[in-house]
This record gives sequence, structure tokens and C-alpha cells, in this order.
Amino acid sequence: MGNTFGHILQLTTFGESHGYAIGGVIDGYPAGITIDMDFVRKELSRRATNQSTFSSARKEVENVTFLSGIFKGKSLGTPIAFVVQNEDARPSDYETLRDVYRPSHADYTYMAKYGLRDHRGGGRASARETIARVVAGALAKTVLLSQGIHIQAFTSQIGPIALSKPYTDYDLSTAESNDVRCPDRELATKMQDFLTQTRLASDSAGGVVTCVIKGCPAGIGEPVFGKLESVLASAMLSIPAAKGFELGGGFSLTNKYGSEANDAFFEKNGQICTRSNNSGGIQGGISNGEDIYFNVAFKPIPTIATPQETVNMQGDNVIIETKGRHDVCAVPRAVVIVEAMAALSILDALLLQRTNRI
Amino acid sequence: MGNTFGHILQLTTFGESHGYAIGGVIDGYPAGITIDMDFVRKELSRRATNQSTFSSARKEVENVTFLSGIFKGKSLGTPIAFVVQNEDARPSDYETLRDVYRPSHADYTYMAKYGLRDHRGGGRASARETIARVVAGALAKTVLLSQGIHIQAFTSQIGPIALSKPYTDYDLSTAESNDVRCPDRELATKMQDFLTQTRLASDSAGGVVTCVIKGCPAGIGEPVFGKLESVLASAMLSIPAAKGFELGGGFSLTNKYGSEANDAFFEKNGQICTRSNNSGGIQGGISNGEDIYFNVAFKPIPTIATPQETVNMQGDNVIIETKGRHDVCAVPRAVVIVEAMAALSILDALLLQRTNRI
Amino acid sequence: MGNTFGHILQLTTFGESHGYAIGGVIDGYPAGITIDMDFVRKELSRRATNQSTFSSARKEVENVTFLSGIFKGKSLGTPIAFVVQNEDARPSDYETLRDVYRPSHADYTYMAKYGLRDHRGGGRASARETIARVVAGALAKTVLLSQGIHIQAFTSQIGPIALSKPYTDYDLSTAESNDVRCPDRELATKMQDFLTQTRLASDSAGGVVTCVIKGCPAGIGEPVFGKLESVLASAMLSIPAAKGFELGGGFSLTNKYGSEANDAFFEKNGQICTRSNNSGGIQGGISNGEDIYFNVAFKPIPTIATPQETVNMQGDNVIIETKGRHDVCAVPRAVVIVEAMAALSILDALLLQRTNRI
Amino acid sequence: MGNTFGHILQLTTFGESHGYAIGGVIDGYPAGITIDMDFVRKELSRRATNQSTFSSARKEVENVTFLSGIFKGKSLGTPIAFVVQNEDARPSDYETLRDVYRPSHADYTYMAKYGLRDHRGGGRASARETIARVVAGALAKTVLLSQGIHIQAFTSQIGPIALSKPYTDYDLSTAESNDVRCPDRELATKMQDFLTQTRLASDSAGGVVTCVIKGCPAGIGEPVFGKLESVLASAMLSIPAAKGFELGGGFSLTNKYGSEANDAFFEKNGQICTRSNNSGGIQGGISNGEDIYFNVAFKPIPTIATPQETVNMQGDNVIIETKGRHDVCAVPRAVVIVEAMAALSILDALLLQRTNRI
Repeated sequence: MGNTFGHILQLTTFGESHGYAIGGVIDGYPAGITIDMDFVRKELSRRATNQSTFSSARKEVENVTFLSGIFKGKSLGTPIAFVVQNEDARPSDYETLRDVYRPSHADYTYMAKYGLRDHRGGGRASARETIARVVAGALAKTVLLSQGIHIQAFTSQIGPIALSKPYTDYDLSTAESNDVRCPDRELATKMQDFLTQTRLASDSAGGVVTCVIKGCPAGIGEPVFGKLESVLASAMLSIPAAKGFELGGGFSLTNKYGSEANDAFFEKNGQICTRSNNSGGIQGGISNGEDIYFNVAFKPIPTIATPQETVNMQGDNVIIETKGRHDVCAVPRAVVIVEAMAALSILDALLLQRTNRI
Repeated sequence: MGNTFGHILQLTTFGESHGYAIGGVIDGYPAGITIDMDFVRKELSRRATNQSTFSSARKEVENVTFLSGIFKGKSLGTPIAFVVQNEDARPSDYETLRDVYRPSHADYTYMAKYGLRDHRGGGRASARETIARVVAGALAKTVLLSQGIHIQAFTSQIGPIALSKPYTDYDLSTAESNDVRCPDRELATKMQDFLTQTRLASDSAGGVVTCVIKGCPAGIGEPVFGKLESVLASAMLSIPAAKGFELGGGFSLTNKYGSEANDAFFEKNGQICTRSNNSGGIQGGISNGEDIYFNVAFKPIPTIATPQETVNMQGDNVIIETKGRHDVCAVPRAVVIVEAMAALSILDALLLQRTNRI
Repeated sequence: MGNTFGHILQLTTFGESHGYAIGGVIDGYPAGITIDMDFVRKELSRRATNQSTFSSARKEVENVTFLSGIFKGKSLGTPIAFVVQNEDARPSDYETLRDVYRPSHADYTYMAKYGLRDHRGGGRASARETIARVVAGALAKTVLLSQGIHIQAFTSQIGPIALSKPYTDYDLSTAESNDVRCPDRELATKMQDFLTQTRLASDSAGGVVTCVIKGCPAGIGEPVFGKLESVLASAMLSIPAAKGFELGGGFSLTNKYGSEANDAFFEKNGQICTRSNNSGGIQGGISNGEDIYFNVAFKPIPTIATPQETVNMQGDNVIIETKGRHDVCAVPRAVVIVEAMAALSILDALLLQRTNRI
Repeated sequence: MGNTFGHILQLTTFGESHGYAIGGVIDGYPAGITIDMDFVRKELSRRATNQSTFSSARKEVENVTFLSGIFKGKSLGTPIAFVVQNEDARPSDYETLRDVYRPSHADYTYMAKYGLRDHRGGGRASARETIARVVAGALAKTVLLSQGIHIQAFTSQIGPIALSKPYTDYDLSTAESNDVRCPDRELATKMQDFLTQTRLASDSAGGVVTCVIKGCPAGIGEPVFGKLESVLASAMLSIPAAKGFELGGGFSLTNKYGSEANDAFFEKNGQICTRSNNSGGIQGGISNGEDIYFNVAFKPIPTIATPQETVNMQGDNVIIETKGRHDVCAVPRAVVIVEAMAALSILDALLLQRTNRI
């Protein structure tokens, strides 16, 4: 029931972390689009774990195989299925965790829900599932770019270190030039130092990803329950470890007066624009043509190398010490996943908007 | 496309602020439930505008009429339709706004989307639409209560005044005893003073609603795209003026170490419990049996009595001064709407969970 | 769960036969369409029961009230809700049937499903529910006509009397000129005589409705599960008393050779056409530009004035004799409902097709 | 948009006939079910093409690989993905058909819809896609059998040769003992002879599949648009070459009186039963506990070895002669696909019914 995202453009994902494969099916992808395999691989490599010292040591140079829906390099309009095999899986790493519920992981809740679970590496709850989102996101971006819509996310906070200036003060394209994906070079170094310290302390850290969508036309989003911010919030909160979402001014608007928070309209070259953008590019659930931007909060990765109190399947209180290969901080890699989910959301809304008038 | 919420329990709402009526259809409501009309009316009166000096002067003692789905006081299992007529509508109040786009309202975006709009009182984008959600929420709460699930929201912040203690330090049932719905009596008075000042300054204010769900069994929520937090985020961001959502520790977790943020499991009377609840009762998208709690950020009401710069339908830069009857702050009334959307989300997830095992 | 039809254009219906009202909500209807209220009323009067001596004596000059979604005569793009009150309801007619399950009615199955039921006039299972479909169908037809798509259904069989010639041999516009809606004047008279005899025998009759859709462009329908014939079959089998559906040559093709059944393509004025149309205008689930046509089988109305063996709620074998006001044959009125469901199906498919290419 | 079937139990299929693979994803499958791989393979072999002389010579001993959702032989409650590689594909067989539209195939309509197509073996429109349905159907049957629900389909007509007795007169288990899957041994031989003659004549034949579902409890099906017959009709008409569906008495009821067609209820051992079963086990869209049975009409296979008039992509009138390996009659293999779609429909309805009462 819960493994499909979208209304027209529908991504269904499947796969457990240490099962045979991870993959997805994209239905409703427009026909006739040239699929750029290099771009798909590039996006996957942006997500890959072996990119920095702050990520898991698990080698994930993913090899995606497309099974259907593409013919002579173009989308057919039929479902595009793809798989990525789980080659470097080491289930034995997890044998000691077979009977124990790791704190703040989904081990216990999956058991409560389904009555059984694949205990290896989190099974379905593993962030490895997001590989499928990144593949589908790459395909969605291809269409959006052809429509002049550009999506970029970056790290705006890790632990206590946060950008103090608005995103408009940065050249966002520089974010990819450092391992933490922060467009502020100085802060990036501080973030890296913080993560090194955190790793040495056998601990983990959280942070915030900010996403900016430029070039989105006014008019997309489906009130009242398919409001664009509602769709984006749903998309972002479906990412592992995400705990919060705020659009535009978000929580900071709660302490502003209406006269401060309102975005005045003005006319510029025949376009209707706003002087400020506290709304984050969406009003009443519909895009207004300004930049759409939002923040996503990520909790620290729950897997840490220090001993923790917990309970096993027999209900005994026990102490666990997690081994295996894990990230210190999910945020830099989450940047790519946030972009992918944003791309799927925006393209779906764009396609839906085509049905609103005859 | 966008006016239905839920998968099994489906609420479809309809109605413009100054059209003939507001209403909804609830499909998938379990059969055989005794409908408590007094409770429905009580919930509607909690939402009504005439309850305090901080709300719009528009008289809204709603009279809901049920059209179907109920027979001899019990739900039939068939769709429950209901309407609330728009009796005290004064469309003439809005005549001056027919051609102008109010800042941070949905006037412009509805025009951009549909090519025409009902300019009276925001039309479909009016918060009046939420009447239908409150009616449906009341019916959902009835079922949840019979299962031991209790939902209560309250005001945790208005403008600069915010609760500093966690919700567990308060007797939440006292929140309803003051106009701002804050469980801290002292802060409630300060909030009321702040709103009085804000009204005098012809301005408006925002704030935060916190919602607590007690008694929800472990196991509900549908990973990976129907995660319970994903559904709740979608539900909350569909409420007018909502700009942010955070589950459990939310954004504050971004600046914590994993060792601080993790919720240790322990066994208590054969139950698996957690020592802390930074997760907000949900792990991996599935409830874990602890309290589910979350915050929703509301921006200040965009309608203010001070002159504002904007643009009219002809594209001219103009100054508008809004009259009409409006709230100073949406937060106290939003409390009821947040509860309603939470109730719909939880009941839907509860029904879905019944299909996960044979 | 089951009261919504369509993907983009979504009709949700509600209402029991002798409850407060019957109605519906249409979501996803294109914005800016001029609503022709006279046409809606005309379609409703085509469905009404008082039109002929073969229909129920229940007076049904329906008064539809639109509650939302229309402003200054045009669709807003927001949900269009409408209600028809149940004015001439005589629940007392049904008091004797409160505890008894009428043969081949839904009394028993509703009880088995929901554990309770509204016994008055069939409750939700009454054909009166189709009023909502006819209203929505009228609105869908308005859009389709603007696109050059014309839908007409007619009676092709009542009891043993059936058209022997293909529909292309008739002027279909003449079907509306007689009470049974048959385009063959001679057969129409025979059908009327047959129905008069059937009524005198206190019995009821079934028949076949044929529907023809002209002007539908090639390319609509969504393989593989949203094939156009799959959608149409689902739509038609949702009509009360419908027991069968066949597209184009249908069941008669089962006894043809491929060389007879195949529709040869040829070029005509730059158009691709077919020499025959056994396919019924759909190939591989997608329209090919030829007429779409299909038959729908209706069983005899189960309510008959002769005594019948059955069981009551206590499980006792009893004899019932049904009184009340009932049709002898549903087919002439079903013509309008078949058209309405076809219009909803085709418009939905047309809107979906807009999302298949960028 | 159109490649997913079901509401709770959702099958998404993918794959073109001569692409890399055919496959599917099953979401919403109950957790904890033991998957019987031998049964899956047995069902696939029932569908396979090399089973008789009347089927295509293409070797299809399918090797299904499950990618996810199963752990230690049991379903996890997470999506079950599976693939079948297209090993014996000979795309060169189809090179001559690259530019031409085969009569009564989907070549032209796919082109009209998507603007491009995979011309090899029908691409997505190939019956090879139904492999995924059979795999999913096998898994659905496993659950249904554990609930005492048994589904069996058989050939009731091929060309002019049809069963004259009702299905209740036969031992249906004997149907699998002959190549045409007909439970009447004598007629089976006649059908085989007819098909041999048809093959010699370079022609093809159609027929009828009858499906019987025993043990289905009363109460499943979701009125009014999710009526069980509506779902079954949609499921059946989504099968390639299906042109008609009739439930119970179906089209034959159109020529019966109500007094003949009605199914009298009676009490037997505390069960409510019906004396006849013209309703086909469904009344008002809900199962009544009797056998559910229906017929599906299949047109002759459009691929024939005789020259046919048609049009090419350039719009020229041409003559084509189809080579390649093709069945003479789809009906015997369709038996398995009909069962699979019935199983998916019934299990989905069964799961939905669990949400109708608290």
C-alpha cells in the first residue's frame, strides 16, 4: 500500500538492504524523453557511500540496470523498471543483531507491524532503499530541466554549525565542491572538522538540508489536500531520518507580524513578482513563480559505536554495541535524495496541471 | 484531483467561502458506529469564529446537516455526506478586492492555476473550508476513542511567547479553559495581551500548535511513502497558513548527537517502552506505542488592516487596504483543525494496518 | 473506499434512496467551462421515472442544487458538489420489508457486509443513486461536445425483441422519440407491447443498451490495467442490474476466424481508418479513432409483484409479496446512465492523455 | 498511470516483449505468508507457450527471480518484486514489421498515444506481459486457499464448439487433463480438431473462458464503483484480446422474466443460500456466499499467416504477411491469466472488507 509515490508520475520502490536487489518502477513518465544514462550514474555517484570519510565504508558503486520502458535511448511511455543488485552485502555483520532492537531504528516497529522482519542492515528500512529514488529523480530532473526548472539542495546545517545568511547570498553551484555539500567554504571546513570529532567520539550527527527550486511556473499544486507544500512535506518526511519540514520562512514566521511576513506583489516586465519570499514560492498550495525553497531536518544517524541500553526479541533488557559500516552523518548524502524527491513531486504536479483546463 | 484525503477513510471536501455551502463526503467510515451529533457540534463550536476577541467577527454558529450514510443514529458503511450553509456571507465586503491580489493570499495563484477565481473571501482558499475537516475529524475521533486513542492539540507558541517546558509537564486538559488554548495559564495571559496589542497595531500574528496522540498501538503507518510522519506532515501542511511540521524532537534534533537523540528501549510489564521520546512515537514510519507528538508552524494571518503594496489583475502596482472581518491569529482555532487532520490520518492508518496480516 | 470513480475527473456519489438526499462531488473538472443548467435538467428528465408507463410511478422531477465549484456560470476548477433532495420518499411503503431479504436484491449482501442496513427502498443500492451519475455525466458531456466527441446510447434489446441490424444502419437520433429509446420504430412498438404484457403478468424484463461514442481521437486509454475497455467495463458493471459488457464484436467474435475478425487499416485523406470495426474502436486498450461502441446487458428488475420464496433476518423461510412503485424494465432509463458513465470514462481518459507527452 | 492493479494488494507490472525483462512488484501482500516457489513455477508452466501444438513455438520455460519482499521463505509485508528475463527473444523476426501497423494489433494505437513504440513483438502490448500477472496470481491464490477460497477457470468455448451444460455438471478438475483445458473430454477433442484445421488454414480462433470461484464468503465488494463485478470486469477486460465479460447468467438474462431470473433465498443449516445462481454469486456488488462465476470472451488472435491489407507508418496502403511464432488460439493459455486476475481481485476485496467494521 505504501510503496508508491505520486499520482501521474508514480514511483514504486522495492528492496531490502541485504536482499537480492533494490529497485523501482516509474509509471507515467512522459514518452519520447531521451534518457541520459551518464546523468543517472552521476546522480547515483553523488549519493554513493564511498564518497567521503564521513560516510559508511560500504562500497556502493552502483550499477543500475534498466529492464523496460526505454527503447533506442528514449522513454516509451510504458513503465521504466530498474534494479541495482546488492553486491557488497555482508549479512554476517548483522547476525548479532538478529534478536535485538536497535534504539531509534525501525527494528521493533517493523516487528510490531508485520510480525517478522529482515534484520540484516535494517531490511526495508535501510537508507539503501533511496537508491531507487535517486534513479527516478534523475529521470524526473531531465524532464524538468527541459522545462527550465532547476532543483538544487545543499547542506545548510550540521550539528551546531549552520549557515547564517539566506541561500540567495551564495553561489549554490559551489556546494558540490566539498564533501559536506555546503556552499559556504569556511563553514564547510568547520562542518568537516565537527564530523571528524564526532566520529572519533564514536557518535553521530544530524543537520539540515535546504532545497531550492528555480524556474517553476506559477499555477502548479492541487488544493486543498494536494497542495504543493503538502506534497513536498510528505515527500521529504518519507526520507529516512527526516524529522521536520518547513517551507520558506517556516518556523521563523511564527514569530513575525503579518506586516513583516507578507510578500508584497509588484509588476516587473509584465511578470508578477514578490518583493520578499517568506512564502517560499507557494501560496494557497499553488506555486507563484518565485523560487520554491524549504528546509528538511535530519536527526543524527541512530547507529553509533557506543554501547546502548535496549531490549531483545525475548523482551530482556540488554546492552548492544553496533559494529558494521555506517555513516557519521546522513546529511551530505541526503542532499541528493531531497533533490530526487523534490523532482518527483514537481514533475507530478506539472503533469497534473495539464489537466486543469481544456 | 486534490480534494480527497486518505486511502481507506477518505474525506472529500467542497465549497467556497461565500458560495452556497461548505461540506464534505466521508467514504470508508466503518459501519455500525453511533454518531454523536452533540460531539460534532461541540467540535464545530471549538472551531467557530465567534469564540474570542481574537477571531473574526463573522458569526459562525454552524449548522451541519447530514445528508446520507447514517440510519437510526448509526453509520451505514456508505458515504456520509454533510453540508453547512454559508448563511452570514457578505460578498459585498469583498467587492473592492475583485481585481486585486492580496499579498501572501492565494488570489494570484488561483488565477494563475485556473484562469478564473471566486474572489469573495478567498473562495476555495478560505479557512472556512476546514469546517468540513472538523466534522469529519469529530467522526474519526469517535472511532479512535473507542479504541483508546486520544488526540489533543494546544497552542505552544504565539508570536514571541512560547512554552519552555515539554508537554509532559502540563495538564493538557486545561488548554481549553482559555481563549488561546494554551495549557500554561500564565503564558496564556501573556499571549492574550500580545494579541490585543497586535490587533491595536492593525497587525496579525502566527504561532505553533503542538499535537499529542496517546494510546496509539505500535505498528501503524505504511513505509516507505506512507510512513506515518509522511502522512501527518501532508495532513498538517494542507491546513491554511501552515508552513512547517516537525515530529518529536524535530529541528532541535539536528543539533544533537546520536547518543543524545536515541531513545533507549526498556521492558516494563511486558511492554516495550522507550526512556526518552525524541522519535515522537514513530520509528521508520511506524508507530512504536509511545505518544505521537508533533508541532505545526503557522504564519501570521496575511489579512491585515494596514495599507500594503500589491498588483491588480491588470498588472498595475496598487496599494490595498483590507477591510472585512478577520482573525488576528489563526493559531487558537487551528488547534481544532490540527486535531481533526490527525484523527483522520490515524484512523486511516489504523484501518490500513488491518490488511497487513491474514 | 468504493464511492469514487475516475482518476483525474473524480466523481464521488452519496445518498440512500429514502435518506435526506442523493448527490455527488465532481473533482478535477476543468476550469472555465460554462455550465449549462438546462442541459443538466434535460438529462435528469431523460432519466426520470415518470416518463413512461413502464417506469415506476414514483414522481421524480428532480431539482438539483449546486453547492460549490461554479461562479458566474463557469466551473472554477474546484470541486462541484450538488444535491437532489428525496422529496417523494414514502418509507412506509417499505416497512413490511424491514426484516426480509428480497430475492436478487442487495438486502442480504449489504447486511452481510456492513452488519446493518437502511432497508427503505434498497438504501444505497437503489438505482436512485444514479441521479448523481447523470448530473456528472451531463457536465462531462459538455466538455466532450466542445471537443467534438458525441456519446449516444439506445435500447437494442428488450426481452426477446432485439435489433438485428448493426447500429450504423439506424439514425440514432430517432431513439429518443419513443418511450423505449429504440431507433427502430417498428421494434420499439413491439418492445412496448412486450412490456405491457409483462406488466400485466406482474413480471419484469431485461434487455441490452448499446452505446456509441463518435469523434473520440486516437490515443486515449492507459494500458495495461487502465485500458479504455477495462475502464468502460468497470463503469458499466457498476450500474445497478448490469450483468455483462462487450466491446465491438464482443462475444460474437469468439466464433469468428482471425481473418474475419481483423479490422484492416487503410488510408483515407491522410487519416488511418479501418474497413470494419469489430474492435469497437479500441486496440490494445487505446482508442484508434473509429467509433467506440459496446453493449451492456441488464437483468430483469428483481422487484416483481408475484409472491416469492425467501428468508428473513431471523433466518426463517418466508414468502414475500412486493408492493411499492417499481419499473417493469430498467433498460430505457439505463440508456441515460450508460451515457453518463461513458462520458465520465472518456473525459477522464482524455485528461490523462494530456500527461503522456511533454 | 495505468500499470497498477488493486487498492490494497497492488500489482504493478512492467516490461516489453523483447526488452530486457518482464516483471512486477506486488505491494500490500500480507506479511508472514509462506511462498510456495514450486506453485509459482507450476502456474507459470500452465501459462507457458510450449505446452501444446496450438501455442506459439517460442520457448518459454520461464525462470522467475524474486528480488525482494521474501525472507526465509516468508513474505515480509514489503513489496515483492520479481523479474523474468526475455531470453529467447528474436527481435530480428520483427524487423520487417518495424514500419507497418498490423491489423487489430496495438501497433497503431501505441504510436498514436505515445508518438513512438517498441515494434518488436508488440512491445508492451504483447501477451508476454501477463507472465507478471500469473506470478502475482499464484501468490494471491496461496492466501486465498488458506481462507478456503478456490478459483478455477476452464475453456467453455473455442470457435463454434461450446459447452452446452452448466459448469456444475462437470468435474472441473479434469479440465487440466487436455491441451485445450475443457472439462468435457469429448468437446475437448473436437476443439483440438478445430484448432488443427484452423492452423492448417493459416487462420486463428477465439473462444470463451469460464471462471468459478468457490468458498468466497458473503460480504466482499465495495459499492458503488468498486462493486465486485465492476472490479472483475475491469480485471478481465485488461487481459489482451478480451472483448467481453458477463457475470452469472449474463447476457442470457436479458431475455428472461424477473420471475425466472431471480434467485430465491432459503435457509440451510443456518446458512442463507439461493436456489438458483443467475446472479453469479454477487448481488448489489457484494458477494452473497454462492459460487462466483463469469465468462470472458476472447477474440481470435489477430496475428495470422495470411496476407492482409494495412497501412505503414508513412501512411501508404500495403499488404503484410506475418511470420514469427504465434498461437492459433489464446483461450487455453488465457485460462491461467483469468484465474490470476480473479485471484488478485478477490484477495484485494477480501483485504478491503477487513476495514469495513471496527
